[in-house]
Amino acid sequence: MKKRVVIIGGGIGGLATAFNLKKLSKDLEIVLISNRPYFGFTPSFPHLALGWRRFDQITIPLAPLMAKHGIRFIQESAEAIDPDLNQVKLKSGEKVSYDYLVIATGPKLVFEAEGQEQNSTSVCTAEHAIQTQKKLEEFYKNPGPVVIGAIPGVSCFGPAYEFAFMLNYELRRRNLRHKVSITYVTSEPYVGHLGLGGVGPSRRLMEDLFAEKDIKFVANVKVKAIEKDKVVYEDLNGSTHEIPAKFTMFMPRFMGPDVVASAGDKVANPVNKMVVVNRCFQNPNYKNIYGVGVVTAIPPVEKTPVPTGAPKTGQMIEGMALAVALNIVSDMRNSSDRFAPTLSAICIADMGNEATGFVANPVIPPRSWVKTKKGRWVHLLKSGFEKYFLWKIRRGNVSPWFEEKLLEVLLKLKPVEPCSDCSGPPGSRC
Amino acid sequence: MKKRVVIIGGGIGGLATAFNLKKLSKDLEIVLISNRPYFGFTPSFPHLALGWRRFDQITIPLAPLMAKHGIRFIQESAEAIDPDLNQVKLKSGEKVSYDYLVIATGPKLVFEAEGQEQNSTSVCTAEHAIQTQKKLEEFYKNPGPVVIGAIPGVSCFGPAYEFAFMLNYELRRRNLRHKVSITYVTSEPYVGHLGLGGVGPSRRLMEDLFAEKDIKFVANVKVKAIEKDKVVYEDLNGSTHEIPAKFTMFMPRFMGPDVVASAGDKVANPVNKMVVVNRCFQNPNYKNIYGVGVVTAIPPVEKTPVPTGAPKTGQMIEGMALAVALNIVSDMRNSSDRFAPTLSAICIADMGNEATGFVANPVIPPRSWVKTKKGRWVHLLKSGFEKYFLWKIRRGNVSPWFEEKLLEVLLKLKPVEPCSDCSGPPGSRC
Amino acid sequence: MKKRVVIIGGGIGGLATAFNLKKLSKDLEIVLISNRPYFGFTPSFPHLALGWRRFDQITIPLAPLMAKHGIRFIQESAEAIDPDLNQVKLKSGEKVSYDYLVIATGPKLVFEAEGQEQNSTSVCTAEHAIQTQKKLEEFYKNPGPVVIGAIPGVSCFGPAYEFAFMLNYELRRRNLRHKVSITYVTSEPYVGHLGLGGVGPSRRLMEDLFAEKDIKFVANVKVKAIEKDKVVYEDLNGSTHEIPAKFTMFMPRFMGPDVVASAGDKVANPVNKMVVVNRCFQNPNYKNIYGVGVVTAIPPVEKTPVPTGAPKTGQMIEGMALAVALNIVSDMRNSSDRFAPTLSAICIADMGNEATGFVANPVIPPRSWVKTKKGRWVHLLKSGFEKYFLWKIRRGNVSPWFEEKLLEVLLKLKPVEPCSDCSGPPGSRC
Repeated sequence: MKKRVVIIGGGIGGLATAFNLKKLSKDLEIVLISNRPYFGFTPSFPHLALGWRRFDQITIPLAPLMAKHGIRFIQESAEAIDPDLNQVKLKSGEKVSYDYLVIATGPKLVFEAEGQEQNSTSVCTAEHAIQTQKKLEEFYKNPGPVVIGAIPGVSCFGPAYEFAFMLNYELRRRNLRHKVSITYVTSEPYVGHLGLGGVGPSRRLMEDLFAEKDIKFVANVKVKAIEKDKVVYEDLNGSTHEIPAKFTMFMPRFMGPDVVASAGDKVANPVNKMVVVNRCFQNPNYKNIYGVGVVTAIPPVEKTPVPTGAPKTGQMIEGMALAVALNIVSDMRNSSDRFAPTLSAICIADMGNEATGFVANPVIPPRSWVKTKKGRWVHLLKSGFEKYFLWKIRRGNVSPWFEEKLLEVLLKLKPVEPCSDCSGPPGSRC
Repeated sequence: MKKRVVIIGGGIGGLATAFNLKKLSKDLEIVLISNRPYFGFTPSFPHLALGWRRFDQITIPLAPLMAKHGIRFIQESAEAIDPDLNQVKLKSGEKVSYDYLVIATGPKLVFEAEGQEQNSTSVCTAEHAIQTQKKLEEFYKNPGPVVIGAIPGVSCFGPAYEFAFMLNYELRRRNLRHKVSITYVTSEPYVGHLGLGGVGPSRRLMEDLFAEKDIKFVANVKVKAIEKDKVVYEDLNGSTHEIPAKFTMFMPRFMGPDVVASAGDKVANPVNKMVVVNRCFQNPNYKNIYGVGVVTAIPPVEKTPVPTGAPKTGQMIEGMALAVALNIVSDMRNSSDRFAPTLSAICIADMGNEATGFVANPVIPPRSWVKTKKGRWVHLLKSGFEKYFLWKIRRGNVSPWFEEKLLEVLLKLKPVEPCSDCSGPPGSRC
Repeated sequence: MKKRVVIIGGGIGGLATAFNLKKLSKDLEIVLISNRPYFGFTPSFPHLALGWRRFDQITIPLAPLMAKHGIRFIQESAEAIDPDLNQVKLKSGEKVSYDYLVIATGPKLVFEAEGQEQNSTSVCTAEHAIQTQKKLEEFYKNPGPVVIGAIPGVSCFGPAYEFAFMLNYELRRRNLRHKVSITYVTSEPYVGHLGLGGVGPSRRLMEDLFAEKDIKFVANVKVKAIEKDKVVYEDLNGSTHEIPAKFTMFMPRFMGPDVVASAGDKVANPVNKMVVVNRCFQNPNYKNIYGVGVVTAIPPVEKTPVPTGAPKTGQMIEGMALAVALNIVSDMRNSSDRFAPTLSAICIADMGNEATGFVANPVIPPRSWVKTKKGRWVHLLKSGFEKYFLWKIRRGNVSPWFEEKLLEVLLKLKPVEPCSDCSGPPGSRC
């Protein structure tokens, strides 16, 4: 009988794992559970919020896609995991048993600042991005001060920077920029930190970009409340400050969703409920459970005065998905070969007509090298990548040979490496 | 009977207003009063001080110029304004009545630091520049430390930077640079602030330029005294410091001249005696009085620890002159159309063989965009602009169509915009 | 009878003085004393330590070289100088008398931090570099944290920077970089100070380079001890800190060697035992004694919180050698012409595949100009210069006409200038 792999999550991590498994072995039954009927290209949600993309341009319906590639698709919410019985319980009460479980749900969004959920906006889901677009259309009619940023505990700063730069561009296009002050308020100790202790000279780069684009910034502070007309934050001395704001966009904190928590402390990190994994992205307690993507518990790169976490970018998630697929197939074949993702981060912040790109190899220091590039061509690269990635997903081939070659030749990046000893935190050296 | 416009001042603001009025309407009698017999191109006074230009290269005699363009010219000092009687009183006692009055006198220079007038030099007038040149010729024979900078309250920092860079270049040319230390001492909170809260990454740019050219700097201090052999300044803690100096050049503070003060507090700002204007550069109390140029009271861009003001550059002054001319003609024709200058600043600091240029659009934040450029071509652009501007003045056409097109196409700058509501401080949004 | 010039030292300073003297006059007997049998190209010792050069590629045996060029060579240690009897005493007891003495011994290396000599490495001599290479080969097998830097009192920082960048490159080449953190710990008040108060924007340049290459840094501290597994340093508040370290390389402090001290306080600076010279590099007390190179006492460029000194680069030493040769020949001919080196510094830090170059003209501020360049071509320039310099030494012509022309035309550098008054510290203006 075929072994069954159950994947919870239909985002980059879930799909990449599914397609990699398909490619690596014919002897697996793959079941993908997602509460959303579509795959959405997360990096383009800010573009959706600004009306630069339509919903259908950056999403793919999951049911026909899964059918076409021979993957069983259950469009339903996964409610609980029983790791001892090897079962996932769905909202309907149905139980799906598994031989291997891959948790790739993505995060639960925690809008922790007072009033954040009611008064602010987000670009973390397609639904949020669409609501944000509606708020922006109102805002353009009667503009005022804008505040964009990140609350304490955020691990994903890129979209906040990107959104600030993109909104700056959109306001210029609408000839409204001179009526709108933009301020970036963040829990990072300095701008350009990105939850990564910086990437090469990213601090100087971001300071210069903010100066060039007349975006003010406040770093190393705790945003406490987002009200209808202002943002309230506290500095490290405990003093409270306010900035007037007519439109705000603040990144939420990420936690593991309830379905992960339901699996107990051996699977879910007690603090943030994310999936506990070793450097091969396998749960150390239940060897047939794996984690992929934002839902995995990666330790922060460094301790910061206001808490921050390390981001997980698309490139890192594709690496995790490939490593997990390789490890499952290897385990199924009773081979002792194991693989770990190298966790190199490629990250491009769009700015409208140009973009800034970072490559950190690996993302956890010491780093072999980093690159930072800025220009119109980086913007075109990002647009091109969106098209390419959606094409990959439609085709069901997430690791084409030419992509691997290109990464290896151009950037000397390998997404995964053989790992003789999987014990150790994710991102540590094999 | 033709309406009479009296313009006090024969600088960029006065001439640009006169020529714009000439072009816009045949039905006006224009009278220009100036105590100086010539028009001088202020941005080239530092070049005069260094002997890089002759006096006759950057000045134009006013009497023949005004005659040629049908403008009545009175070469005499305007002593007082009676805004209730609509009269300007000249030094001779003669009274000139007006229908519209344009005050474009330029500033009164206030050499406020102790000993500044006796011991230091200035490049604010052609006469000062010529004296500075004489002092420099002596200095070259027996060189020593140089200190250049700005006292508290200064609003025009550009020429101080420019002079520091140009003198550095001249000293290198004379093979004296290694015998001369150069220090820049300023009331700005940081170098590159420029009274503007910075222009894009101007802080970093200026710090790097100073480092490259071995110019030391001290920012955020109050220069108290300029003695024959040293400069004395006070830091924010109240401590006093001294720098040895054999040659100094310090920007003075600008105030409104006595003729503006004579018009009373409804015309002259009680604090600095500059002309009170609304965003259309019209006096809000006497609707037939307008202000153009450095003599107008523009609020500072931001409060700084040591007081500073916002500069008014040539590009801004040309915008004011055009808006005021449009508003006068509109008023004369009983139209309700009003115009406000957009106050974008183009500012080029020459450095001898290269130059640094800033464009801030608009100069009062939030800014739609800023640009900073450095290079030999910027130096050539500045030299070319001087020739072009003097050609414009001689021709009596200060807003040729191709200039407007060029600005609009290349820099997306429009000098003026329609303004439905003129109430509000100058530089605020219509 | 021919006058005899005795030169102690067979490095850049000693050989350049000898060859310049040969070229300038046939009427001199030249004796060169060196305890080393070879000339070594010091700037390539870091390359030797990394195995990028072999010993024989960057050294030249002195005996045949001296014989070929008609210079008497004594391979023996000079033990003492009697400046009143005009004699140098050798280790053998033999006494060599002189008409003129040139001291070009190079420094005595002082490994002052506790444990530095036993636990750390150095690249200051070929022997040290070879030991360093052996330690590195062991290190590569089992890598860990690296700490590189400079103890208090160091005057030569360039090789520490260079070694950090080169080791970073070598570790990347060996695919070990992600297992090795690199930290630079220095007595400089900031990185890029270089004992020179910075060279143009060198601070920003070095900070950016360190960020790009993921090298952490700690500046303005006193390294107290270098243990087997850690480096201990004290900050300015007196607090002690530790960094784990598996491999270290620390620059030692330079002093004058014992042979200089033996000449008494009129020749040797009482504090650092270096040769006391005036701006013509002549000892002010014994007019027939000259100093060349690192052994001369040049005052520091500026006082720093943790003591540092000013470096003496190859270009500066060649200038000293030429000035001293000119002065000796002039004195011998009873001419009153005297010469002083201009002390311009050209300094290139190799980084493996690219390099960063600085030119400071002159090295003692105020500087006429500075240049900083970075790129692959600078790396090639450094490699090319090594070959060119060794070719010059073999040919016995250290100041070929085309080199002088090139420096003059390309960089407007003249190595020496006529000096009417030699009294004054070295590096001060004639």
